[in-house]
Amino acid sequence: MGGLTPAAIRAACRAGTWSRPTAGLAPSFAQANLAIVPRDWAYDLLLFCQRNPKPCPLLEVTEPGSPEPVTAAPGADLRTDLPRYRVFRDGELAEEPADIAHLWRDDLVAFLLGCSFTFEHALVRAGIPLRHLAEGRNVAMYRTRVGTQPAGRLHGPLVVSMRPLAAADVARAVQISGRYPAVHGAPVHVGEPAALGIADIRHPDYGDPTEVRAGEVPVFWACGVTPQAVAVAARVPLLITHAPGHMFVTDIPEESLAAS
Amino acid sequence: MGGLTPAAIRAACRAGTWSRPTAGLAPSFAQANLAIVPRDWAYDLLLFCQRNPKPCPLLEVTEPGSPEPVTAAPGADLRTDLPRYRVFRDGELAEEPADIAHLWRDDLVAFLLGCSFTFEHALVRAGIPLRHLAEGRNVAMYRTRVGTQPAGRLHGPLVVSMRPLAAADVARAVQISGRYPAVHGAPVHVGEPAALGIADIRHPDYGDPTEVRAGEVPVFWACGVTPQAVAVAARVPLLITHAPGHMFVTDIPEESLAAS
Repeated sequence: MGGLTPAAIRAACRAGTWSRPTAGLAPSFAQANLAIVPRDWAYDLLLFCQRNPKPCPLLEVTEPGSPEPVTAAPGADLRTDLPRYRVFRDGELAEEPADIAHLWRDDLVAFLLGCSFTFEHALVRAGIPLRHLAEGRNVAMYRTRVGTQPAGRLHGPLVVSMRPLAAADVARAVQISGRYPAVHGAPVHVGEPAALGIADIRHPDYGDPTEVRAGEVPVFWACGVTPQAVAVAARVPLLITHAPGHMFVTDIPEESLAAS
Repeated sequence: MGGLTPAAIRAACRAGTWSRPTAGLAPSFAQANLAIVPRDWAYDLLLFCQRNPKPCPLLEVTEPGSPEPVTAAPGADLRTDLPRYRVFRDGELAEEPADIAHLWRDDLVAFLLGCSFTFEHALVRAGIPLRHLAEGRNVAMYRTRVGTQPAGRLHGPLVVSMRPLAAADVARAVQISGRYPAVHGAPVHVGEPAALGIADIRHPDYGDPTEVRAGEVPVFWACGVTPQAVAVAARVPLLITHAPGHMFVTDIPEESLAAS
């Protein structure tokens, strides 16, 4: 699958021949987090994203009822072109289907948000190793005691991802990830987990634990789980997301997201 | 007035003792464009801004009915704290009042958008002269034949501002303004006015003409007039903006808007 175009990967998802995580696929194209809500909730979610751009870097918002992301992947269908979905009803996980055609309604609005894969690729290209990738595990994520800016009915804490870096690599990692504001940008916090309210770095709230070794500093980026977590907490009547790691592969070249 | 704090300038506007343009006031703090629309139009305008971030760099969106920009200037009142307003009804200019307290409603939502003053200050500090400032005139602005990304009922052409620069200054001006994505960022177009559909650079659609001399290149930035122009064209029932040049002075330090 590694050599396929984004369109070919989406077609494989649509045909049901690809249903696994998307890490490593079409590596020079941006992948996206998906969150679908009814139009009645779309204003609150859009405003939440505007007020919290680091955890919620919007790549695209569709017109109500349209499943086509006309900018990120013209011709694609967000009802079928991801390998797996999660459906939440009133804040409770209801199903994990392979497509959502049976759930589609004329009032649904899809949000595509930048994904950390893009800045991780840039870090790796610059020679900065990332342990969770080397170990084939999910990144470690934590709920913090840092609040987000609420918007309408949506409010809740910032969720961060953590990557341990050699102290000598921290500054370059800030500069490199900072070039990509559309995929979370520069870290929100460097070192001192306790200042975020993280009591034990060995026990993340989401994903897999990653060891922080002597000489390393835990570096924290705003995480795209944040908007999903606030939508679940607000008990949005219908919320559809990608299944963890099963992202939407866009036609957006990663380098086109570089700010400078 | 030049030495006053943003809060003191806003208080003078509120008391009616300052009703003139705000250029040059509180020069290290960001000033903002204002657009107020009913809640029924706020989703379209918010989505338009999300889809068109270069002409519409959002600094803040207020909660419906609240005139306080809690992030940009806590304690301020957007009904009184600008020197002059423009009120459009169904797309027609209806009045230019000194305050809008008499027009306020529980369903109004205020949008504050970044203003070019901030990147102009950075250019001048870097030794890049700007002719319209030296001449005490408004910047020249043009409707282009470049479309924006429509959003719901809002659609229309991109409006740009033009500053003539010495050819040797163009690259540095791109880099310097590009540091400030929250105030339009890097130019959208360099040279070749005809490619934007500008037939005669000497006749701007808004603002004052600025001469382009031999050895200079016209450089075009996305302009905050764009969202106002599309809202007027869509005949939003009630649209309230700042009067041209009579901006909202925020508490946001300009340098805090630098991306890198």
